[in-house]
Parts: sequence; C-alpha cells; structure tokens
Amino acid sequence: MFESAELGHKIDKAAYEVEVPQLREDLLNAQFDLAQKAKFQVIILVGGVDGAGKGETINLLNAWMDPRHIVAHAMGEQSDEERDRPPMWRFWRALPPKGKIGVFFGSWYTSPIVQRVMGKTKASELNQSIDDINHFETMLTNEGALIIKFWFHLSKEAQRNRLKSLEKDPKTRWRVTDLDWQRFKLYDKFRRVSEHALRATSTAEAPWIVVEGVDPRYRNLTTGKILLEALRKRLKHPALAVPANAPPLQAPIDSLNVLDKLDMSQKIARKKFDDELEKYQGKLNLLTRDEHFHNMSVIALFEGSDAAGKGGAIRRITGALDARYYRIIPVAAPTEEERAQPYLWRFWRHIPRNGRVMIFDRSWYGRVLVERVEKFCSETDWMRAYSEINDFEEQLIKHNTVLVKFWLTITKEEQLRRFKERERTGFKRFKITEEDWRNRKKWNEYETAVCDMVDRTSTEIAPWTLVEANDKNFTRIKILKTLCQQIEAAMKRK
Amino acid sequence: MFESAELGHKIDKAAYEVEVPQLREDLLNAQFDLAQKAKFQVIILVGGVDGAGKGETINLLNAWMDPRHIVAHAMGEQSDEERDRPPMWRFWRALPPKGKIGVFFGSWYTSPIVQRVMGKTKASELNQSIDDINHFETMLTNEGALIIKFWFHLSKEAQRNRLKSLEKDPKTRWRVTDLDWQRFKLYDKFRRVSEHALRATSTAEAPWIVVEGVDPRYRNLTTGKILLEALRKRLKHPALAVPANAPPLQAPIDSLNVLDKLDMSQKIARKKFDDELEKYQGKLNLLTRDEHFHNMSVIALFEGSDAAGKGGAIRRITGALDARYYRIIPVAAPTEEERAQPYLWRFWRHIPRNGRVMIFDRSWYGRVLVERVEKFCSETDWMRAYSEINDFEEQLIKHNTVLVKFWLTITKEEQLRRFKERERTGFKRFKITEEDWRNRKKWNEYETAVCDMVDRTSTEIAPWTLVEANDKNFTRIKILKTLCQQIEAAMKRK
Repeated sequence: MFESAELGHKIDKAAYEVEVPQLREDLLNAQFDLAQKAKFQVIILVGGVDGAGKGETINLLNAWMDPRHIVAHAMGEQSDEERDRPPMWRFWRALPPKGKIGVFFGSWYTSPIVQRVMGKTKASELNQSIDDINHFETMLTNEGALIIKFWFHLSKEAQRNRLKSLEKDPKTRWRVTDLDWQRFKLYDKFRRVSEHALRATSTAEAPWIVVEGVDPRYRNLTTGKILLEALRKRLKHPALAVPANAPPLQAPIDSLNVLDKLDMSQKIARKKFDDELEKYQGKLNLLTRDEHFHNMSVIALFEGSDAAGKGGAIRRITGALDARYYRIIPVAAPTEEERAQPYLWRFWRHIPRNGRVMIFDRSWYGRVLVERVEKFCSETDWMRAYSEINDFEEQLIKHNTVLVKFWLTITKEEQLRRFKERERTGFKRFKITEEDWRNRKKWNEYETAVCDMVDRTSTEIAPWTLVEANDKNFTRIKILKTLCQQIEAAMKRK
Repeated sequence: MFESAELGHKIDKAAYEVEVPQLREDLLNAQFDLAQKAKFQVIILVGGVDGAGKGETINLLNAWMDPRHIVAHAMGEQSDEERDRPPMWRFWRALPPKGKIGVFFGSWYTSPIVQRVMGKTKASELNQSIDDINHFETMLTNEGALIIKFWFHLSKEAQRNRLKSLEKDPKTRWRVTDLDWQRFKLYDKFRRVSEHALRATSTAEAPWIVVEGVDPRYRNLTTGKILLEALRKRLKHPALAVPANAPPLQAPIDSLNVLDKLDMSQKIARKKFDDELEKYQGKLNLLTRDEHFHNMSVIALFEGSDAAGKGGAIRRITGALDARYYRIIPVAAPTEEERAQPYLWRFWRHIPRNGRVMIFDRSWYGRVLVERVEKFCSETDWMRAYSEINDFEEQLIKHNTVLVKFWLTITKEEQLRRFKERERTGFKRFKITEEDWRNRKKWNEYETAVCDMVDRTSTEIAPWTLVEANDKNFTRIKILKTLCQQIEAAMKRK
C-alpha cells in the first residue's frame, strides 16, 4: 500500500504557488456550501508515521479553510471520565455536527495499531478491532457522514534521514529524543501492522489515502486537492441513495410468534408480592453497594406497549437505589443538537460512568419500533439499525456494563381497560393522549416490529426479557428478579 | 437559625398516613405542570448535618414524584476534567434544563463550609465565597429558576444519640466509623460556620429552609409541603415581573466617547508588518509551548463592527498555534438545549481545559450589544448582564485563565468601503448579507452600547483592548502583541 508513497514525490515552488490560491478559494467555497446546506458532517482522520506531517496538515487545513467551522481533536491520554466508559465514547462525544468538519489527530485506529506493534494484543484481537471499525465507519457513512482518511507515510530511509538531519541542526536537536530512536527500531513492525490495518479498512465508502510525507508542498497540495474533490463530490449528492434492496424480513406464515407464546395469565397475589418486593429490592440495594459495583455499571432499558406499566416498574427499581447514583432518561423526540448527529449519538451521551445505574424509559429501539411503524425513517435505516444496535450493545458489555432489556407486553383487552381507567382517574389523565389511541390502531404492525426486534437483537450477550405485564405485581417482581440475577451473574464472571 | 429545628418536632403515624396520599398526588400534578409549561427549572439543594436525612430526602422526592423528570447529582470528588476548569463549571454542566428538577446533594456551599471548618480558609475567604454564591443564585433566579434550599439539622445531642444507637445495633454498627466520631468533635464549629453561611445566603429569592432531621415523618412531610407550596406559587407566576426601574444609563451629554478618542489613522506598512507578524507569531507559539502553559488556559474573545476584520485577525492567531490545542467558537443563535438554560450556560460549556486556547468569535457580550440594540431581551436582562459577566470573568481569571477581550472598531466610511468590496469579490460575497446593511443603519445605537459595555466591563482584571481596525495590518499586529503581552504577564505573576 505504501509503494506509491516512497517514490520521492516533489512539487517545485513555482508550480505550488500557481496552484495554491485557486485551491484555497475552492476549498473555502466548498466549506461554505457545507456549512449552509448542513446535511452532513465531514470527519477527517489523520494518521501515519511520525514526522510525516500529521500535525502540519491539521494546521494547514485550518489555515487554508475557515477555522471557525473546523474542530481538531488531539486524542491523547483518556480523561478519567473517558476511562470510565467504553473506549469509543470519547470519539462519539467529539463527532462534529452536520455542517462542520472534525479532524482527528489520533483516532480509533491509534490504539489497535499501537497495542499490536507493542505486542500487547494478538493478531486476532487486531482483526476484531478492524471489524468493529469497519462497522462503525459504515454506520457513519450510512448516517450521511463523509469520512476522509489520510495516512502520511515516510520510508524507513526517509525517516532515518529526517531524524539525523534534525539532530544535526543545533536549533532542532532537542526535538529528537531517545524515544524517537526506540520507535524507529519498531519501524518495520509498525509498517507491517499498519499496512494490514489500512488494507482491511480501505472500504468503498471510506478508503485510505496514503500521502508521501517527505516534501511539504507535495503533501499539502495532495491533501488539499483530495479534500476538495471529496467535498465537491459529496455536495453534489446530498442525499445518499441507499437502495432498499434487501430481502423483506421473514413474514410469519403461521400465527405463532414469541409474544403469543407468553403465558399472559401469570399473577402474583398481594401478600406474596409484598414479601418478594421487599426481598428483591433489598437484594438490589445490596448489590449496588457491593465493592465490585464500582467497576461496573448497569443499563436497564424499558420498552413496551402503551400503558404496559413501564413507569411503575421503573419506580420499583429506583425505590431500591440511592438516588445519587442512578438516572432515568425518558427518551422523547431528539433535540436540535441530537438531530445534527448520527442516530445513536443521543444515547451514547448518556452512557453511565462505572458505579452508576442508568434507566432508559424507551431507548435506541425506537428506531425499529415507532420509527419503523410510523415511517419516520426509511426501511434501509431501520434495517441497518439491528446490527448497529448489536454493535453498540457489544461495546457496552465489553466495558462491564450489565445491560438488561425489558419488553413489557399486555393483551389488547388489558390495554383498553387501562386506557379507560386512565381517562377516569384524575391524576392519571395526563398519561393518556390522542396519540395512544392512534398507536393502538396499529397494534398488529407494532407486534410484527416487536417480534422482528426480538429475533434480531436478542443476543446471547444481551438477551431480551419479555415480561407478561397483564398483572402489575407479576411484572414488577419479574423485572426486579431478572435485574438482580443479571447483576449477580456479571459479578460472578469477574 | 437552628432553634426551631431543635424542638423535637414529631408527626404520628396516623396523621402522616392521612396526609401523604394527597400530598403525593398534588406534587405529581405540580410536577406535570412544570414539565408541560417548561418555562423554568427547579434547583433543590440538600445540605445539613450528617445523619439528618439528606440522602433519604433525595430518595423520597424520587419516590413521591415522577423520577423521570428529576435528576439527582452527588457532587463528590471532582473528575480531572472538572479540576481543569473553574470550580463552578461542574455545577453549570449539571444544571437541569427548563421543565426539570435538579437535586444537588453537595452543592456550591459544601466546599466553602467544609474548608472553613477544617481551618483551611480564612473567615474573609468564606465571606468572599458567600458573596459569589449570592450573585450566582440571584442570576439563576433572574433567569427564571426556582431555587429551594433545604438544610437538615440535628442538635448535638441528637447527633450523639444517633451515632450511639447505630453502634449499639449489630446490624448497623458498621455504619459508624472513627471518622464519624472525629467529625462529631467538629460539631460546634460546623454549626457555627454553617449558621453564618446560611444566614448570609438566606435571600428573599432563595431562603434556606431548615428542617429538623430527627423524626423521618416530620422531615418528609415538611419537605414535601414546602416543595409543593414553592412549585405552586412559582407556577402561578410563570413570568417573573422584574421592573426595569433602574436609572437609565448615563447618556453622554457631549460627543466625547471612548471610541471617538481612538486614533483611527494608525497604520503599519507591508514590510514592517511582515517582520512583526513573524516576530509575534513566533513569540505566541513559544509561549503556548512553555511548560507553565500546562497550568493555565487562554480565552481570546472578539467583538467588533461588521466587517471590522475579526476573522482575519483570528486566523493570524491560529496561524501561530498548534491546531490540536485551540478551538474557535463562532457564536450564533443559541440551540434548543441552550435556550433551556440560563444565558451564560452556552459559554460555560465551552470553557477550555488547562493548556488550551479558546477563541470566541463574538461572545457573551452579545447580550449587551445585539440583544440590547435589537431588543431581543428586556432592559432588565441586559442591565443585569454587566455584573453577571464580570462575575463570570472573575471566576475564569481566578482559575488561571488569561482572558483577552478585543473590540475591533472601524469608521463608518471604512465599513461602507468594505461592504461594497465584499459585494464585488467572488468568494467574499457570502460574507455580506441584508442583515449587515440593516445593522449599519443602527450605527449610533451600537456605538452607545459599545461605550456602555466598555465602561461597565473593562475591569482591572479583564480590561477591553480597543483596536483601531481601519488598517488590517495594524489590527493584526496590535492583537497579536496584546495577546503575547497578557500571556507573558500572567506567566510572570505565577
């Protein structure tokens, strides 16, 4: 992959000075169109060999374009808030909103490559990271982002010459440390590992651009021209045409589905309920005060038919917890800042630190439920959401998050009874709206969407718990019990 | 202040059980109105003596109300991201948006009181903190927030009895540590210091409510009732009627003002400019790479007439900096999430960590400039902004931020020339809009606003630098030079 970047490319000064003014004007214009149309964001990754011009390139982009709409991120040491969350959290929080350009110096590639070069991970682990990265970048592209990945390269010879000439000049001698020479010794390994990573992540949507880093004029002009071309191309096609040519989801050819199989008659009588409530609330309380709990977190998410009793169940959980360490996120329509980001961004921003419990009242599954049924997003969008969600949840679980997913189901008759009761009861009246009645008319569509959701996202590591919710006592105990069991199981695995 | 909270208040079980159901329903209803009308946020502070029921109260509020619209914050150890910014940053980032309730367990009172009790600060420092707190809370109230401050109290005797009875019971013995008894020894001092702090911060807008903490039923009922009453009262008066009864700002009775006194003919010729640009850009670059720079940060803010050359000046600064460590915030209309917060929130969220440079292209001064002139806010709002801004800037400077404020001024004729030039030049065309022409018609109003701004916010610790900006070379050098001087001066002070 690096052959063309070791040829000794050079641009002479005269040619450079002829080309640059027009290029800058064109870049500024393209950036202005980007800011105005604001339908997508630009994500520029800058990686490569030390001394090949990574830092200089970031400065160049800021100098040539309008720096007010570019945000550069130096991804150095993680802060403690970042260490307390899955590794990708820091990148999600730094994503540029639509209309802006984000430049990442050090990206999601840095750690997998460096760890492998240092011999801290196995080849298979690197490949796993590469897979994850490909999924992540595909998701970003599908969400409309333009990803441009620059790799600045120096041959081993050029790297040695660079270090030597820096050492020779008294003014720059301080820039070369023992560490630089130690890293130079790893050159071949670094080259091998990064070539592998680059090859495996040079996808059609986000190919790597390898740029020879020896001659600054060649480097600058190449970078600028590629960026301009990419911007122009993408600006011409503001709406990505992703054909919905996947086969339709398997339509049930009989009436059996996972919801019909539930025994909806399950009940718990008052006396037994009181005992069990005390028992499991006590248990949950102890679990969250366990010393092991400091190194893990819990996410409990609730989905369910309208009036299935999500709120009541959540209160039975929070009743067992210290209010200082949990938070409930009621998921409603996304805000303006959230709409300027990829779909999952608004959930990533609420990922808890270790030692905390986060409860989602509705969740990222909105995409494959309400957004699918109400056609708020395209078929392609909700179809890809299944695997995006699985990827997301896998990251949570890898970071010691206990993820517990509840679907609360009630029968159509029970829902009707509860709707009517709500209309009658003073302080429950605000819990029933026109929209609830409208949703009810789409009962079957929702049921299909729920069954597909369970089929596609009930994974071994993050299974769905279907809750027979016709009886509130039964619902609440089943949820508390499941939560306790899953936290306990996670503690035992450690 | 604590006399009434040492009387041994008690509520018997029967009376409690009669009152609670109605109270809960009323609280839920009030909370629902709050969420629907969403014109203000509720900030509940919970402080007091250990063991007087602080944690229990937070859990109670969550149990009695809809926990989805309450966010509790345990303000324990600062994270490293928090330590790298002024102390109030962590509270700003935790403020609830309009329509929600935020409960702070540990608040802006904790550190000033504890530091003083431990003898780590002087009485005068505590008083300074109290002043700052009063300013902060007045600002919050003026922004519409409802602040309710609960202090849970136990007499010394009650505290001793509590610790002893916990020790006696084998099930709770573990809860009493040596540290508890050590803290008990400081009881009198803690009482004295906190009484002083409470008295001095019991303002008309945000008085302290001292609640005896011995009897849980008394404590719960008192807390719930006060909260309900406060919510109802505030809901009845959604718009705060703050009369604009301040005397008018001093109108100039002659034609002298700070802008007229500027020598607008100052120029720098091309040759000298090139030399000086290189000199000061080099200097600025060195300063930001100085080891002392890791413990400080820079905020440079730019205000100025339209077409005064802010963008060009900013690019001459960023040209000297490493793009990984600066960021430019172009200040535009606030987003939805920003509008749900007090005015300064959207600037606090961009406060840089140590070692960083943040450049504001327009700033929090918008309130006393465009918002004043265009009447986007009331006179009362922009009048109080002067002192709110001074408070804000004082906090920045106390935290080793070098704050440099530039006003770029051009003559009316020069502005006309530049507007016309922009209309003629291809890639500058987008820099001139109808709005610019409209603003130009209000030249005199803007001039008055600028002079008032300088008079009221050019403080000894954060002076304005007025820049004669008719000549671009002169402008850029003066700005670079000033920035270097102020960073140098701050380094010397350390």
